[in-house]
Amino acid sequence: MPVRSVELEHLKEMILKMAMTVEAAIKDSVRSLVERDSELARRVIDEDRKINTFDVQIDEECVRLLALKQPMGKDLRFITTAMKITTDLERIADNAVNIAERALELNEEPLLKPYIDIPKMSRIAQGMVRDTIDAFINEDKQLAKDVIMRDDEVDDLNETVIKELMFIMTQDPSTVSRAVKISYISKYLERIADHSTNIAETVIYMVEGKIIRHMLPDQI
Amino acid sequence: MPVRSVELEHLKEMILKMAMTVEAAIKDSVRSLVERDSELARRVIDEDRKINTFDVQIDEECVRLLALKQPMGKDLRFITTAMKITTDLERIADNAVNIAERALELNEEPLLKPYIDIPKMSRIAQGMVRDTIDAFINEDKQLAKDVIMRDDEVDDLNETVIKELMFIMTQDPSTVSRAVKISYISKYLERIADHSTNIAETVIYMVEGKIIRHMLPDQI
Repeated sequence: MPVRSVELEHLKEMILKMAMTVEAAIKDSVRSLVERDSELARRVIDEDRKINTFDVQIDEECVRLLALKQPMGKDLRFITTAMKITTDLERIADNAVNIAERALELNEEPLLKPYIDIPKMSRIAQGMVRDTIDAFINEDKQLAKDVIMRDDEVDDLNETVIKELMFIMTQDPSTVSRAVKISYISKYLERIADHSTNIAETVIYMVEGKIIRHMLPDQI
Repeated sequence: MPVRSVELEHLKEMILKMAMTVEAAIKDSVRSLVERDSELARRVIDEDRKINTFDVQIDEECVRLLALKQPMGKDLRFITTAMKITTDLERIADNAVNIAERALELNEEPLLKPYIDIPKMSRIAQGMVRDTIDAFINEDKQLAKDVIMRDDEVDDLNETVIKELMFIMTQDPSTVSRAVKISYISKYLERIADHSTNIAETVIYMVEGKIIRHMLPDQI
């Protein structure tokens, strides 16, 4: 029995909604740090439940479609891709929660220095999440490749942040506890970009039927 | 058409082999650090290709079985679970590579202090990977729950390691660069334990048909 397109549209909608919620969680977690807004940090932590619910619902819907509709070809690929994508989205949200948790701690201590690269990383990471899901919905291979390329920017920014923090710690040992927490936040953002890259690779696989997950960038 | 049991057995074998290779990668990556064996570290990095190949092959086999056999009920759950599990196994291996990369750097510098908690974390994490896959193959819900409980031990050890490293950095700023690298290794091991927990949760879901992914420990 073919999957009716209304069912696939419904699945797409659920994923879009989940992705929008995840993107907002990243944004708010970093805002709670930059604006030292602990109330907002707590809200990010609380709202993770919503994202977990999306994850479970989409997973159930995919298994239901596989079982009842026994889809073939393109539809089958779309559904197995959806199952993988939501796992990554859910873990991106977990990283946003981790950022909010560190923000709560950092907001209790004096500001180490104004945050410049962290918001920049966050903006790139949010764009990667948004575009990778758009690439999925529209089967846009080029956009997915573009997301993968942006991962290097986040990696470079992360390296810059870590180096700077190590320098600050070496100069003034009283900064160690705060600097380590900020370095975690940088790492969480890097991981969010990695998950977006994973999604983008899965999308290309879906479109091309070609596994690029373990290829080098110049092979893609 | 039902999936022939010989095909499921073959799939199980592939996953077992992949898991054994991943377990060895964790063990060797930490050994390359503790024994300051950079040759071994490079081998871990090289052999990641093998694990990536397993990942692709298992994924392809799962999609093939879904397409050609259109499995129902238990078999369908088993195959979708297998697809999720290998993603986690592959990412565990990525963390082992990250450990080996940090080991290569640390082996070039004087030893900061003998490693005690890191090997302990590694042993627990390896056991978690092994048991979580055994739980999957034997549909052993109890073993999967047991793995989830062990995650706290790794989290606690990670916290101990990080606190100790922060103390060392505060006392002697010349240790910052090494201490930060060691703290990453501790984090990578913690993430390996998290991935094993994810697998265990997926296994319980497969056995019980109940999503425990987002439940609190006392609800499990």
